[in-house]
Amino acid sequence: MGLIYSKKIIKGSFFTSRTDKEVYFVKDALIETDDNGEITKIINPADQDYQRTLEDAKENKQLVETRDDEYVLPGFIDLHVHAPQWPQAGLALDQPLNEWLEQYTFPLEAKYQDLEFARKSYRHLTRNLVKNGTTTALYFGTIHEDANLILAEECQHVGQRAFIGQVVMDNPEQTPKYYRDSSTKEALNKTIDFIKQIRTLYQDSDLIQPVVTPRFVPNCTDEALEGLGQIAKKFDVLVQSHCSESDWEHGYAIERFGKTDTEVLKQYGLLNEKSVMAHGTLLTEANMDTFKDEKAAIAHCPISNAYFGNAVLPTRKLLERKIKVGIGTDISGGFSSSMYRNIQQALISSRMLEDGVDAQKPAAERGVAGARISAKQAFYMATIGGAEALHIRAGQIKVGFKADLQIVRDELSAISSNASQDVFERLMYQTNADNISKVFVSGKLVDHK
Amino acid sequence: MGLIYSKKIIKGSFFTSRTDKEVYFVKDALIETDDNGEITKIINPADQDYQRTLEDAKENKQLVETRDDEYVLPGFIDLHVHAPQWPQAGLALDQPLNEWLEQYTFPLEAKYQDLEFARKSYRHLTRNLVKNGTTTALYFGTIHEDANLILAEECQHVGQRAFIGQVVMDNPEQTPKYYRDSSTKEALNKTIDFIKQIRTLYQDSDLIQPVVTPRFVPNCTDEALEGLGQIAKKFDVLVQSHCSESDWEHGYAIERFGKTDTEVLKQYGLLNEKSVMAHGTLLTEANMDTFKDEKAAIAHCPISNAYFGNAVLPTRKLLERKIKVGIGTDISGGFSSSMYRNIQQALISSRMLEDGVDAQKPAAERGVAGARISAKQAFYMATIGGAEALHIRAGQIKVGFKADLQIVRDELSAISSNASQDVFERLMYQTNADNISKVFVSGKLVDHK
Repeated sequence: MGLIYSKKIIKGSFFTSRTDKEVYFVKDALIETDDNGEITKIINPADQDYQRTLEDAKENKQLVETRDDEYVLPGFIDLHVHAPQWPQAGLALDQPLNEWLEQYTFPLEAKYQDLEFARKSYRHLTRNLVKNGTTTALYFGTIHEDANLILAEECQHVGQRAFIGQVVMDNPEQTPKYYRDSSTKEALNKTIDFIKQIRTLYQDSDLIQPVVTPRFVPNCTDEALEGLGQIAKKFDVLVQSHCSESDWEHGYAIERFGKTDTEVLKQYGLLNEKSVMAHGTLLTEANMDTFKDEKAAIAHCPISNAYFGNAVLPTRKLLERKIKVGIGTDISGGFSSSMYRNIQQALISSRMLEDGVDAQKPAAERGVAGARISAKQAFYMATIGGAEALHIRAGQIKVGFKADLQIVRDELSAISSNASQDVFERLMYQTNADNISKVFVSGKLVDHK
Repeated sequence: MGLIYSKKIIKGSFFTSRTDKEVYFVKDALIETDDNGEITKIINPADQDYQRTLEDAKENKQLVETRDDEYVLPGFIDLHVHAPQWPQAGLALDQPLNEWLEQYTFPLEAKYQDLEFARKSYRHLTRNLVKNGTTTALYFGTIHEDANLILAEECQHVGQRAFIGQVVMDNPEQTPKYYRDSSTKEALNKTIDFIKQIRTLYQDSDLIQPVVTPRFVPNCTDEALEGLGQIAKKFDVLVQSHCSESDWEHGYAIERFGKTDTEVLKQYGLLNEKSVMAHGTLLTEANMDTFKDEKAAIAHCPISNAYFGNAVLPTRKLLERKIKVGIGTDISGGFSSSMYRNIQQALISSRMLEDGVDAQKPAAERGVAGARISAKQAFYMATIGGAEALHIRAGQIKVGFKADLQIVRDELSAISSNASQDVFERLMYQTNADNISKVFVSGKLVDHK
């Protein structure tokens, strides 16, 4: 690999998931990263080489120290971001989905043919995400290949790990004329070209990967779905789309194909272990079995789902069934670019699924028993869940894994319990961009100024 | 009034509610405040005296200018804060309510007999709240009068408008021995003394007011409830408590009194136009009628309710019935000190009430039609709703009202639509403490450093 990272020793207490059951805490560790951007050693204070490693690092100016009220966490993996929608984050969420798409979202996405605008917007977004602790993102771009290449440039420049999709939407019945691939053939060709370009341009980088991206079943013709399945297989790339996002979308596939979109996607080779499907709020039990059998992942978007998902994704059930699930902000169906905010909403939504919402119903009939997840489970989804979905060795502080890390300040340290379990929960609930001190991707400090 | 504020002219574009239907926008206004901390004039660019006022203010160094991407909003009114619980914000939310209270909350509150700890904790909290744009808060203190007086000092010092309650919890059956008023008589005497002390100490301030505060019906004996009702009437002060917060609490009153706690509170003179009751998620239709008839207010705590409320408060129904309702963070049942976060969750929760949560139910049976509120309505609750509940002339940018204001930076201004409606929604959804540039209470810049 051509891009050389520099060796570092990060000294700090850290939290990391290993499973969805536990979060591990290590106090005052030395985390060693190498010139491949990987974690090569984790040294505890009790280890023999601790002092010498520390002193050597100081002498060689390789030491990154943390304050007593700072902690190291794995960087977060945002499993669903519509990059072009960032300028409208928080807008028009009072609108029904179709008006939100037609009056706001599609006109905005169409603007990305203007590459100057694309540059400005994508620069703003990528910097915002990394300063919020998101070290990897799975992006939808637009139908504009050049703008998607600019998104890749901005991710590379800021130093964020990024999976980027050339969006396909060629179905004249479900897309506006001003924002539609001019033909199925052109859409497929652009996807192939985008894959090749990214692989050529970033062959020396470990950051940027292309993704096959049918927007969602309603926006695509049968031919496009079929062609994209073949391209994904031929080039061995990840696939992303939306799946059973809402009553409308879930019903649409059934009407058009006589089956759910899970089955449609599977039929076209778009649902397998390399697939990440956003939302899934309306998945049937049989659909969930298909996700499990195919090892496909779900991007849980708890904020967005509250507006457009029509139900709460039963994340606890998915975790218990060992179905792959990570967390996505879904900018801008979700208004917040913060994975912390989405972790929090994942927790809140699971509580609301458990307890129900309507006080007029008796308590026993209001919700779904046993639906709540813990902060540990949400953290697991935001780190390991995302990494497994994307097949990257990241999301854990562990030897052999990418040094994708965030250093986070505990603002309440001075007046609170500093037991590790309490600190962990507080970090999950209280962290803003404001108290994320440093972010590293492949061991390199990202620059979000 | 002894405390003299200084005259200012704040130049900026502003948003303010007048009703729950509309948000008003005025571009580049001059907001004039006087030495009583009130807004005395609002001058539009088209007005004749605009230029002269602007030049005079510059010359007299009374001008506060805002940037093009900054907007002036009324400060928020947090209608329910347990001040002593701030150190545990975000902790143990996985626990059931009784364990959360017994293992975390009551032991923490008991610590406030240590006045040094009280000082440190309350200083941290009040600074945090004002930097989040909260210019007024309705606080529960603890049973410790001296610590409550320290809370008052800290609010006065930082410059936040505060209503502070000497908490009463005297029922041996529902309170732990280590954190209980030693007798009913002592509890009532402390309440009277606290009212008198605050009124004496802060007679020259327009910031600090005492509040009669039975913690909630389960924690209080009949005698305490009766005595507090009489004290509230005699001293003409506000009353705060919790009401129908959860299935358990709602059921408890019915078991003990044969009626709901709304009726119990009313019976004891604790539910009237001077009352603010937190939560209310389990209120019956008849209870809501009582709130309306008595002109009592509800503090909606959307984050906390997701954890402990067992249902979503139907805010739209309350607004349509003209029942007084504001928003509270409910630190630390709610983990976030930000009213923005609570505005956002109020919106999210109303969507989830409308759509329902359980995808296994048919869409038509899942939620409660017509439950969603708009960002305008949430903003109304966080400003005018709170002000009406507390009987203060604040929460609006309007002549004759307190100059309780926040200047907020729109982070996405450079890449987004700057139509006023879009800016308003973005401010509601995107503001963190980080982009609140300045906060004024009674026209005075608060110092949260």
